[in-house]
Amino acid sequence: MTKPIIFLQREFREEFIDKINAIAPDYEVKTKLADTDLSAVEVTVGWQKKYSEQLLKSSQLKWVQAISAGVDYLPLNEFSNQEILLSNGSGIHALSISEHIIGVLLGYYRGLDQSVKNQEKKIWGQDLIRYDQLAGKNLLVVGTGHIGQQLSKSIRSLGVNVYGINTTGHSAEGFVETYSIKNMKKIVSDMDIVVGILPGTPETFHIFNNDIFEKMKKSALFLNVGRGDTVHTKELVAALENEELAFAALDVFEEEPLSKESFLWELDNLLITPHISGLTVDFQNKLMKIFLANLKSYVSNHELAVNQVELKRGY
Amino acid sequence: MTKPIIFLQREFREEFIDKINAIAPDYEVKTKLADTDLSAVEVTVGWQKKYSEQLLKSSQLKWVQAISAGVDYLPLNEFSNQEILLSNGSGIHALSISEHIIGVLLGYYRGLDQSVKNQEKKIWGQDLIRYDQLAGKNLLVVGTGHIGQQLSKSIRSLGVNVYGINTTGHSAEGFVETYSIKNMKKIVSDMDIVVGILPGTPETFHIFNNDIFEKMKKSALFLNVGRGDTVHTKELVAALENEELAFAALDVFEEEPLSKESFLWELDNLLITPHISGLTVDFQNKLMKIFLANLKSYVSNHELAVNQVELKRGY
Repeated sequence: MTKPIIFLQREFREEFIDKINAIAPDYEVKTKLADTDLSAVEVTVGWQKKYSEQLLKSSQLKWVQAISAGVDYLPLNEFSNQEILLSNGSGIHALSISEHIIGVLLGYYRGLDQSVKNQEKKIWGQDLIRYDQLAGKNLLVVGTGHIGQQLSKSIRSLGVNVYGINTTGHSAEGFVETYSIKNMKKIVSDMDIVVGILPGTPETFHIFNNDIFEKMKKSALFLNVGRGDTVHTKELVAALENEELAFAALDVFEEEPLSKESFLWELDNLLITPHISGLTVDFQNKLMKIFLANLKSYVSNHELAVNQVELKRGY
Repeated sequence: MTKPIIFLQREFREEFIDKINAIAPDYEVKTKLADTDLSAVEVTVGWQKKYSEQLLKSSQLKWVQAISAGVDYLPLNEFSNQEILLSNGSGIHALSISEHIIGVLLGYYRGLDQSVKNQEKKIWGQDLIRYDQLAGKNLLVVGTGHIGQQLSKSIRSLGVNVYGINTTGHSAEGFVETYSIKNMKKIVSDMDIVVGILPGTPETFHIFNNDIFEKMKKSALFLNVGRGDTVHTKELVAALENEELAFAALDVFEEEPLSKESFLWELDNLLITPHISGLTVDFQNKLMKIFLANLKSYVSNHELAVNQVELKRGY
């Protein structure tokens, strides 16, 4: 009988293949598949669309290790119906995203974006530069998961007061106070900075809309590094154009890549980054920490040790 | 007899004038002078060139409170000859400069400068963005005074290993290790980032030159927020053009403002900021903390309590 397959949909270094073989000797590790192999895949790392249909057709598939934190692009209902386990890459990107956010904030407060633009025009422009201080600001992290906690830990040490929002308002490490998502409207008016780090679910769709923006300070900043469609883009644009908000930075969008025709490009108080906040060095190592811990657990009792996604909840 | 004058060469809020009057009732506080007043000035806050000659001519002047950290633009020899006390604004700008430096570093490591440029051209460019991680990097702070210590405190908490250089190699709070300036060449090769925060003195003139740049890693970053002429600009440019260094960011220059004709503007791996790192909110409050502490001490025993400049040393 052929061995069941662990299918790696990305290249990994030899050292990691060796570790997988040592933990799961009864499995075969493959990075490329013949068509006939697909029905023998029991575990997959990564989820490329082209294999999706055939993998779901087979009754062999038992566990998907996603490489991203958000999993809203995966067929969660089918996984649920077929009792396929799902774990995500949550945590891998936390440090990168945290550094990205702090970089964006300090870039704004120290006028570095203005300096980059002025340099291109050979303008000295000392008098034109905005400046403010990050230390002492109130920051609201909407989504107190891995990324939110890492951000809180880092930015608190720069003198920022960090508040959190999550589903139930349960307390989370490193936040001055946490509130439930229902109460977001009540708290945003006290905030200098609001950072969205929410997964894409029916509940979070367009949750950042004018109801929120109109309650924020005129001097406030809004950042989104979660899912693009958690933001009502048109209402954000209106808020920026009317200067109801001072500045926004989006790393994610309702449609990606952003088309040349988008009116977002020209907004002077919006920074566009092309979904880069999660790009991280040493990615293989970080993902394999999660996968190998889960693999050990999976081969012994068909359960996952870390990062399991609740399929009904979606994260 | 007329009272001796405390001359404020900048506007300060009424609350501060009241405090000065309370501490020094035997003095008169003035923010504007008649010509005949100049000879009665005993204390001045700030040092504008237009009053320089007449203030030095008078034998009344006893104490100058500078508003900047660097004092190399002041007539230190005359102060020394006439036994005029000098205190500087060191510390006022420390938090701003520290935030500026961290912003520049994260901007580089997260490709934010590239994103700003791409946005202007409506280019998505996800594949073009450089990314790296600040956490784990080795940073050398050249100058372990107020600013260096503030930077060390903040950036250590982001996972950076901070080393220091000062005149004698004496230990300083928050540095993994400190070295004397003579040994800078020996240590720079281990560093990912070198930050210059040196005052302008004969000893520091062009201290950042090719002897240093050629020993740095090809992936390394060089920042200067100290005095412009501590950098041998031509040799820095050559190092950047030859990619002996990955990137530099200058906030200060040998000539300011930088002329339109300067070839620095077009260097792709150089960020120019127009001497803005020290711009700080709440400046009056921060300066008055220093001045009022000194004023108390001055009226009681003609000595300064904090921030006194050693005139022979120059800082």
